[in-house]
Amino acid sequence: MNGYTGKILRVDLTDRKIEVEEPDELFYRQYLGGSSLIAYYLLKEVPAEVDPLDADNLLIFAGGPITGVPVAGSGRSAVGAKSPLTGGYGEADVGGFFGAELRRAGYDAVIVKGKSESPVYLWLHDGEAEIRDAEHLWGMTTGDCQAAVQEELGEKSARFALIGPAGEKLVRFACVINDLKHAAGRTGLGAVMGSKNLKCVAARGRTPVPVADQQGVQALGKMMSSTWKESAWGMHELGTPGGLTGLHSQGKLPTRNFQDGQFEGNEKIGGEALRDTILIDRGGCFACPIRCKRVVEVDDEDYQVDPLYGGPEYETIGSFGSNCGVDDLRAISKANEICNAYGMDTISAGMAVSFAMECFENELLSVEDTNGLELRFGNGKAMVALTQMIADRQGLGDLLAEGTDHAALEIGDEAEAYNITTHGQPFPMHEARSRHGQALGYAVSPTGADHMHNMWDEGLAGEELGESWKTLGVFTPVPATELNAAKVHAYAVTANMKWLDNALGICMFVPWSTDQKIELVRAITGWKTNLLEMHKLGERSVTMMRLFNLRSGWTREDDVLPQRVTQPHFSGSVTEKPVEDEELAEAVSQFYAMMGWDAETGVPTPMKLQELELTWAANG
Amino acid sequence: MNGYTGKILRVDLTDRKIEVEEPDELFYRQYLGGSSLIAYYLLKEVPAEVDPLDADNLLIFAGGPITGVPVAGSGRSAVGAKSPLTGGYGEADVGGFFGAELRRAGYDAVIVKGKSESPVYLWLHDGEAEIRDAEHLWGMTTGDCQAAVQEELGEKSARFALIGPAGEKLVRFACVINDLKHAAGRTGLGAVMGSKNLKCVAARGRTPVPVADQQGVQALGKMMSSTWKESAWGMHELGTPGGLTGLHSQGKLPTRNFQDGQFEGNEKIGGEALRDTILIDRGGCFACPIRCKRVVEVDDEDYQVDPLYGGPEYETIGSFGSNCGVDDLRAISKANEICNAYGMDTISAGMAVSFAMECFENELLSVEDTNGLELRFGNGKAMVALTQMIADRQGLGDLLAEGTDHAALEIGDEAEAYNITTHGQPFPMHEARSRHGQALGYAVSPTGADHMHNMWDEGLAGEELGESWKTLGVFTPVPATELNAAKVHAYAVTANMKWLDNALGICMFVPWSTDQKIELVRAITGWKTNLLEMHKLGERSVTMMRLFNLRSGWTREDDVLPQRVTQPHFSGSVTEKPVEDEELAEAVSQFYAMMGWDAETGVPTPMKLQELELTWAANG
Repeated sequence: MNGYTGKILRVDLTDRKIEVEEPDELFYRQYLGGSSLIAYYLLKEVPAEVDPLDADNLLIFAGGPITGVPVAGSGRSAVGAKSPLTGGYGEADVGGFFGAELRRAGYDAVIVKGKSESPVYLWLHDGEAEIRDAEHLWGMTTGDCQAAVQEELGEKSARFALIGPAGEKLVRFACVINDLKHAAGRTGLGAVMGSKNLKCVAARGRTPVPVADQQGVQALGKMMSSTWKESAWGMHELGTPGGLTGLHSQGKLPTRNFQDGQFEGNEKIGGEALRDTILIDRGGCFACPIRCKRVVEVDDEDYQVDPLYGGPEYETIGSFGSNCGVDDLRAISKANEICNAYGMDTISAGMAVSFAMECFENELLSVEDTNGLELRFGNGKAMVALTQMIADRQGLGDLLAEGTDHAALEIGDEAEAYNITTHGQPFPMHEARSRHGQALGYAVSPTGADHMHNMWDEGLAGEELGESWKTLGVFTPVPATELNAAKVHAYAVTANMKWLDNALGICMFVPWSTDQKIELVRAITGWKTNLLEMHKLGERSVTMMRLFNLRSGWTREDDVLPQRVTQPHFSGSVTEKPVEDEELAEAVSQFYAMMGWDAETGVPTPMKLQELELTWAANG
Repeated sequence: MNGYTGKILRVDLTDRKIEVEEPDELFYRQYLGGSSLIAYYLLKEVPAEVDPLDADNLLIFAGGPITGVPVAGSGRSAVGAKSPLTGGYGEADVGGFFGAELRRAGYDAVIVKGKSESPVYLWLHDGEAEIRDAEHLWGMTTGDCQAAVQEELGEKSARFALIGPAGEKLVRFACVINDLKHAAGRTGLGAVMGSKNLKCVAARGRTPVPVADQQGVQALGKMMSSTWKESAWGMHELGTPGGLTGLHSQGKLPTRNFQDGQFEGNEKIGGEALRDTILIDRGGCFACPIRCKRVVEVDDEDYQVDPLYGGPEYETIGSFGSNCGVDDLRAISKANEICNAYGMDTISAGMAVSFAMECFENELLSVEDTNGLELRFGNGKAMVALTQMIADRQGLGDLLAEGTDHAALEIGDEAEAYNITTHGQPFPMHEARSRHGQALGYAVSPTGADHMHNMWDEGLAGEELGESWKTLGVFTPVPATELNAAKVHAYAVTANMKWLDNALGICMFVPWSTDQKIELVRAITGWKTNLLEMHKLGERSVTMMRLFNLRSGWTREDDVLPQRVTQPHFSGSVTEKPVEDEELAEAVSQFYAMMGWDAETGVPTPMKLQELELTWAANG
């Protein structure tokens, strides 16, 4: 291998042009892949005023250096575009097999520009790329589409990034589905794909991802294969829902549109209940032995759920379950199936339903608005029906498909109190009241309310902080419900490290230590890199996203929390001390300053841009 | 071993009290040792208004974690105090054996406070510490003192940090001499030792420095023992003077008080000439196979030089040689001997002589002022005589002993043009005109003009920067005679890394890679540390020094260069483009900002203090 470089596919759907770009090694060293590469191209090439659903938006699929390398946790890749939900930097990260297949097909990333006159799909295979007609696929569910394309290509082993009808209909929280079971869920990237008339990207490759040190990679992979059970067996056994009942006990399980933190039906929807009732199999991602994904089947008089679409994650069970007051795993799984088949983010969809439920219970919506649905918390059938209505853009579903920020405006002033978003993106299933670092994260995240690039304050408790904190230069423990400058510092380094994961293309559920991640990058790239350089790469990513968002019109005034999570739970049953507005504003200023951004405005300073070698972006 | 901790000896000479402090592991993790530990204690405990020669100043001897561990390069330790030369943070780092012996005697550091009524010395041996009478040693050269104490203790193997008569007489650039041949040269720490009536510290220990991973340390040591010749043989063969003739060729050899960059007599004083004439042996430091030190002997009608005191380094040959226009290695070696025997910094002494020579040539001083010396450039005998006069504080020597800043004021306005210092400390033998990163370093160094914590711009040239730069996040090459924000960034990370070396107690001449240094720290401490944490530790050190200097009254106006190095060489024979004042001022602001200090004032921002967990020092 002659230095770490690769190919980036450029597809212009307007002109039906395909080109291959081969950036030099220095480019890879600074922008690497995945999240970071997406931030670079969006910042560099998307005009400031562009509407996210306009042809001039870019849609980018990108693996990182670890994506597709045969070690556990390498199934991750990123999708990005200017977000139709937040109006700012949009990115979602996803497991499965498509990202690995993309790299094995010879491409580190695909950058899609323009808009096709009629539906098309991309077929990438062994270093070749084609734009193919998709007229006959338009309107299909993801499952039907994938089967049809596999059939017509004669490639049963092709892997897919697809949109369903929700993406075609520009539902603002439509998602990109990989391999039917894995969602690049957030920020509405499926709508961007739909706006381009791009139905799917199919990939097939037989070329192993090149690595500088084959033996080094093998040794690390073997180590993980033989040790993951020690710490990640629970993830295999119960999957992401494994912690649900524990969150209830601690008062941290979002319930009835974040009114409460405890849900009386929690035991019926937790990981154990799932395992003991409708679970029929476990699924996983490329090269990963953990298999944390759930596969469920339901076939009774109330619900039929096809195992083709996998099963619900914790986020899905939370948003359609406790958050809608629903304690029926069948109903939740059906909503999950709809989301995967029609291509919608389960978090945003569940939060749209719970928002509508609270509006209904408070008589801001009536049965006339809901096509007759009794849209009350706990009504699983109504929840499923409304989810389908959103995917179909029918009735109230059409309004909710524009996002709850828009819906709240339409429904009227009182509805805003039930709208729990930052930057237009609904909260995921993690409490902000009892975790003030996370509350800050929701406020300042470049993608709006987000759990993947946030912190779990619990890790900062205790007498003395552990090695992983110390190696990041964080030494001061801070209780979860305090927000001070030390907490802000811990949040800032955490966020940098999590965005780094998305640049690397590595899964946070696989117990790779920070050291081991660096070893992987070294073995793959041949660089003698280290955590200083890689942490700075994460910082560079976040700073590019900030620049993009500022250019998109975001201001400091947008970095705030929705009213509800700054107020106690309705029940008051578990002591909560939500973060106060002034406390948060102070923390936001501190965060800006620690990132090397102006403390008032959050504009990255010239010297920070210099340090990160981003001066090219200063006047962007 | 139960975590990485150790003992710090507290000696109060006023009250003759000795105590041992055992900081916890978290303290070590944040302040580590050497330079960083010194910065911590000076900032924490030395009152803002204290005169450096007052009893309330602290004098600290500190090893780092690597000091005394049996691997090459571990002979380094640090000495620190508020500086009588700069009025700010004073530190000098030194090789030899004393630092290793100190740690083997059971102490990571010795903090000396107060002032003894009569001369004393410290005797540290195998975990015990005594204050002993030194009345009979006062006035002795370092050599006589060391022999006398070895004799009276019956410990031929004891190792020493000593002052000579110059320290006793409070020459403001008196130094601390280790083992007669190694100087903690700069910032006048010997005068602080003299002001405390402390003649020497003798140490003897038989306990190996404890390490967490003995095998790991041994493996690294063995690796270095078997590979150092590949890249460091020249350092053994020719020592630090090996590069002198090359510097002449490039126009970078300070000549005649920095009037020129080329010296016609360079071949007579270079490393090859030294080897081929008066060199009789090579010397080295604890556990190091490189043996880069010179041992010389002269015994003719003009000069007698005792090999007991080793031989001149490059800095010494430069300052007494080309810088005084002297091309006689015998005279240079004699001046070196005087400095080691009487305890003076050879750089500052040579620069005081060259300053006086230029004053004399320009008739600001006459033979009446010089006790009859014809103090012209090139007069080796006069140079040697004046060096002795400074040590003895005789005549003109007494004036120069106060430092050239003071002397220039006394001699009159015109003399300031010949005074080449920043913050009162004379320039070492490295050109600023042709290396603009280094020029910035001279201006902002916390210890005044300094070569050990500075950068050599050459490393930033070339099409693409090498691994060691990239791993520090520096990717943009910048020619040596340009000063832009990219250069400032490179300087900032370089300085952080060099101060880290002094916290670690590792020699910059031994070819340890950054990776290997981190491996050493891991093996020694048991921490899973990495470069991110360690670089931050360097940054923490520099920021503590900045806080100390601000408290001592330094301001932005002090961070400037002496006039001469902003003007071309007199001869004009080699193209030079000195840094311009405005260019430098801009770079200083950029440096402040990149360090997280206020761009105008250089005051560390509250958020940087938070990041470095230095909030305790905010109002210091």
